[in-house]
Amino acid sequence: MLGVAEARVLAVADPNTQAAEAARTLLRAEKVYAEPEEAIRHPGVEAVVIVTPTDTHARYIELAALAGKAIFCEKPVAKDLGETRRVLEVVRRKGVPFQIGFQRRYDPPYQQAKSKIEAGEIGQVEQFIAVMRDPAPAPLEYLKGSGGIFIDQSIHDIDCARFLVGEVEEVHAWGAVRVDPQIGEIGDVDTTNLSLRFTNGALGVIQNSRRAVYGYDVRTEVFGSGGKLVMDATPKTPLWQYGSGVKADHYHFFMDRFKEAYRLELEAFFRFLSRGETPTPGARDALESLRIALAATRSLKEGRAVRLEEVT
Amino acid sequence: MLGVAEARVLAVADPNTQAAEAARTLLRAEKVYAEPEEAIRHPGVEAVVIVTPTDTHARYIELAALAGKAIFCEKPVAKDLGETRRVLEVVRRKGVPFQIGFQRRYDPPYQQAKSKIEAGEIGQVEQFIAVMRDPAPAPLEYLKGSGGIFIDQSIHDIDCARFLVGEVEEVHAWGAVRVDPQIGEIGDVDTTNLSLRFTNGALGVIQNSRRAVYGYDVRTEVFGSGGKLVMDATPKTPLWQYGSGVKADHYHFFMDRFKEAYRLELEAFFRFLSRGETPTPGARDALESLRIALAATRSLKEGRAVRLEEVT
Amino acid sequence: MLGVAEARVLAVADPNTQAAEAARTLLRAEKVYAEPEEAIRHPGVEAVVIVTPTDTHARYIELAALAGKAIFCEKPVAKDLGETRRVLEVVRRKGVPFQIGFQRRYDPPYQQAKSKIEAGEIGQVEQFIAVMRDPAPAPLEYLKGSGGIFIDQSIHDIDCARFLVGEVEEVHAWGAVRVDPQIGEIGDVDTTNLSLRFTNGALGVIQNSRRAVYGYDVRTEVFGSGGKLVMDATPKTPLWQYGSGVKADHYHFFMDRFKEAYRLELEAFFRFLSRGETPTPGARDALESLRIALAATRSLKEGRAVRLEEVT
Amino acid sequence: MLGVAEARVLAVADPNTQAAEAARTLLRAEKVYAEPEEAIRHPGVEAVVIVTPTDTHARYIELAALAGKAIFCEKPVAKDLGETRRVLEVVRRKGVPFQIGFQRRYDPPYQQAKSKIEAGEIGQVEQFIAVMRDPAPAPLEYLKGSGGIFIDQSIHDIDCARFLVGEVEEVHAWGAVRVDPQIGEIGDVDTTNLSLRFTNGALGVIQNSRRAVYGYDVRTEVFGSGGKLVMDATPKTPLWQYGSGVKADHYHFFMDRFKEAYRLELEAFFRFLSRGETPTPGARDALESLRIALAATRSLKEGRAVRLEEVT
Repeated sequence: MLGVAEARVLAVADPNTQAAEAARTLLRAEKVYAEPEEAIRHPGVEAVVIVTPTDTHARYIELAALAGKAIFCEKPVAKDLGETRRVLEVVRRKGVPFQIGFQRRYDPPYQQAKSKIEAGEIGQVEQFIAVMRDPAPAPLEYLKGSGGIFIDQSIHDIDCARFLVGEVEEVHAWGAVRVDPQIGEIGDVDTTNLSLRFTNGALGVIQNSRRAVYGYDVRTEVFGSGGKLVMDATPKTPLWQYGSGVKADHYHFFMDRFKEAYRLELEAFFRFLSRGETPTPGARDALESLRIALAATRSLKEGRAVRLEEVT
Repeated sequence: MLGVAEARVLAVADPNTQAAEAARTLLRAEKVYAEPEEAIRHPGVEAVVIVTPTDTHARYIELAALAGKAIFCEKPVAKDLGETRRVLEVVRRKGVPFQIGFQRRYDPPYQQAKSKIEAGEIGQVEQFIAVMRDPAPAPLEYLKGSGGIFIDQSIHDIDCARFLVGEVEEVHAWGAVRVDPQIGEIGDVDTTNLSLRFTNGALGVIQNSRRAVYGYDVRTEVFGSGGKLVMDATPKTPLWQYGSGVKADHYHFFMDRFKEAYRLELEAFFRFLSRGETPTPGARDALESLRIALAATRSLKEGRAVRLEEVT
Repeated sequence: MLGVAEARVLAVADPNTQAAEAARTLLRAEKVYAEPEEAIRHPGVEAVVIVTPTDTHARYIELAALAGKAIFCEKPVAKDLGETRRVLEVVRRKGVPFQIGFQRRYDPPYQQAKSKIEAGEIGQVEQFIAVMRDPAPAPLEYLKGSGGIFIDQSIHDIDCARFLVGEVEEVHAWGAVRVDPQIGEIGDVDTTNLSLRFTNGALGVIQNSRRAVYGYDVRTEVFGSGGKLVMDATPKTPLWQYGSGVKADHYHFFMDRFKEAYRLELEAFFRFLSRGETPTPGARDALESLRIALAATRSLKEGRAVRLEEVT
Repeated sequence: MLGVAEARVLAVADPNTQAAEAARTLLRAEKVYAEPEEAIRHPGVEAVVIVTPTDTHARYIELAALAGKAIFCEKPVAKDLGETRRVLEVVRRKGVPFQIGFQRRYDPPYQQAKSKIEAGEIGQVEQFIAVMRDPAPAPLEYLKGSGGIFIDQSIHDIDCARFLVGEVEEVHAWGAVRVDPQIGEIGDVDTTNLSLRFTNGALGVIQNSRRAVYGYDVRTEVFGSGGKLVMDATPKTPLWQYGSGVKADHYHFFMDRFKEAYRLELEAFFRFLSRGETPTPGARDALESLRIALAATRSLKEGRAVRLEEVT
């Protein structure tokens, strides 16, 4: 596989045959299938990388687990807690390695931040701030089936909060429709304020928006008794233009901001497998982030703070 | 006065005679008083600059207003709404010019941000984030009489929110004691999350802490449909040291971060007077920021969102 | 080949059989040779990527050209002008595509700078400044055979000057031994000042050092009548640590600073081939940079400015 | 005097009576003169601050020295070495305190850099780079009498080199006319490369230009065996605008870049006087910088490196 010495791509599956062929050429795959199930069942396949639309994740995870294959799946497992639990229980029962695609955990600045926090370099964590704004709203059709902004977008910041600070015990959410009234009409919001109270006593804030005209905006700050860490997103390249003011460029979207992280998380997955280690982030991370996102959704609807223990 | 051609210092008042003499020398003042009242009443004095302890503000404002003098007073007028209203009513009745010391409005980056927002450069404002962390908690004795963190510290960010975004209609506050348990014992918190809902529909967040070991941390971000403005606080000087990593220095406290702003707000006050213009920020700004801070305090205590209309 | 759909690795050659095997596994190569000549001659091989020690470049380029294969070769072709000319003449006669490994031309900031300059965004170029400092001197054994600091190190900045500003007509060089007296003993310097006069009238400076304790330091500035472009090298990641001051990390060496550029230049090479386009930078770029480096070396030795026309 | 407790302004002298009156009001001066000589001779005056046109400096310095007054004078003393020496000899003979206006030595980043270098934080200095570009050329009339770009503009970077690195023993200069052909017609250049060899063995480069369309550009880098210090000039304020790219503002000219430094150098002058200390930078600094600028001018004209010992 791309720069991953431990792995090679045996089969590619895509109902779009043209895309499948392109992938085969690029990845030097032996086989191409239109139906993912066939690829999963191929006896030579030891690990499955699922990067299909969200509502097919649960089905392929289950198939792969039943076939005894290691699984890497893009987030989320599913949009509701019941289905997520059911499928992850199959994974657990079959004992197959499972990694969920929270790529930011493999982004070098976030990785270093994690190491520094664990090494005590900023002392006891006291505050957390995460901002993520997409360059433009996804198509309305997609948003309708997305489960809402907290489950679809905020969940990356939520996972990041758990990764860097710890478990969450209470949330309070506000939302507004500022970008596109149609988003309001389908019962969702496009602009959010999410307060987090961590079980260790720290307070956090996540602010999201569906539109930032200047590009993908992602910034995370962890503040502690001994210092602060900021993972910023600018500039994209260290090229500065001096003309009317001083100007730098900005990331377009998550694909260019986290390009390296996507590569590193896959490398990590195969390295975990080749060493017989447990992949991370795993099933629990998939589940807990969804619970927090669901609590946020409930808080927004009911106009009150929601404790995580209410979401079962 | 220091670089203010329109003004000269006639009298200095300070019960500490040594400090009074030092000020007289530096400011080339003619007279020195131990009792501020005498300075206020001096017939040659046209304008009074009140930089005394908080709980004396109301009294001196009232005295100055009754004596028909223009007034510049450090924030806040008073810690409760009733007293604030009463005193500002005297100011209004006597028709004397009044300016409140929210110096950040005169800090060049904040000034420019205001101009850019008004010029529509970031479109319609959608989100606001302000972070302010003091280097270390004030003495416990001071905190006891401070009215609580929202009235004492957050109020600068609150004024900034009103200055850059507009009026607030609802707040939700969370607090925690993370810095010093003694702060909890006096019924206050030292770490806060304050959510703001603006009447124009925008959402905002203010995060404060009583301690940042690296120095005074103040950052404000205004995000809109057409772009984003960030007023950062680093680096303090454009000196970069490359050794183990790349290192810049950081502000110690508000005195060095806002040194220029303090000078500029006084210059503005005297320029307003010399031109017969109305000073700003004025009485309404003093009052409304206090109302928001009181709403935040109530939200923290009652564990629910509080609408501004409840605070009367 | 790694993410290059147009190419696949047929053969790997390395006298170190362990390294050869590792490369084969990573690159999915079919064959492994101890002797590069065999790989070059394999009839299935259409293009040769030469990343061997400097003094073998000329030989393999010649072999590949005679065998009619497209060639990518790490800089330089050779350390003297005669050998370089001779080998590039073979390349020209055989009409095989040839690309020299000045990877910085494919680094995104440098690429964008080139586009902006060509688009006239900084007007007429007037000044150029390049700084490059290695983290530590290479082993003395290597330096002895390197041809001197201008040919070995400065040549990257020289190519960059030609890429961004244009041809050079005169140079003036000063050098000093500041890092390691042993470098002086072998007749070389470790600290340099190189002034460039471009044929278009612009002036430039290249400053190099063999040691920067904080890591690989590379910064290029192009100044023109309409603005300025700066390609900086810091911070390495957008992670900022606030503790005693504000701290960012720094690149270690060219491998991490130009990692992406190395990938992109190879992708470009194969894309040129697959489209039948002429690869760039090519033979003339290899030759002219060497001439400038030789002129610098002569200037240093003779203590006077040297015109390029003197170096033939 | 403005914030300088140790001093008060007794007299202001300016042939422009309107400007003189404005200064008197601002500075609370007692007297106004049209003729500087009268102010200098006033028996109450203890110290003289000379901020008149360059070609009057020598005369007023001499008058003040003969009258036994402490002297602060804007750079330079004079444009030629003979006159400079003669006047400074009068100063020396009369034993009056003398400070020359190289304000950059009092700019906080440069001050800190000096301290760090002296404390050994970057080890032994090996390289120096200074860039200074004015926003636009001064009027041709002024340039005609300026003594040339090295004496008029580069001298600030030259003083900075002496301040941060040490004495210079050899220079090599190149110049070009890139900004305005009229500058060439009066025998001057507008774009320069100046190489410095320091007596301690370090190498340096100063690059100047008479025009930078984006504003006043001043950046200094000192590199040593233990690290590097960079005094940059951007951004002007910590306000970042995100729209098409990320944008910061830039300084307009030296008055806004070094505003604080100008205040601090005057404060320092009066503090030196009140403490009976020797002001710095003093006569030797005024003289040596001029010698280096003259050596640069000769190098440019004669097309060769010039050793400082040649300039007597």
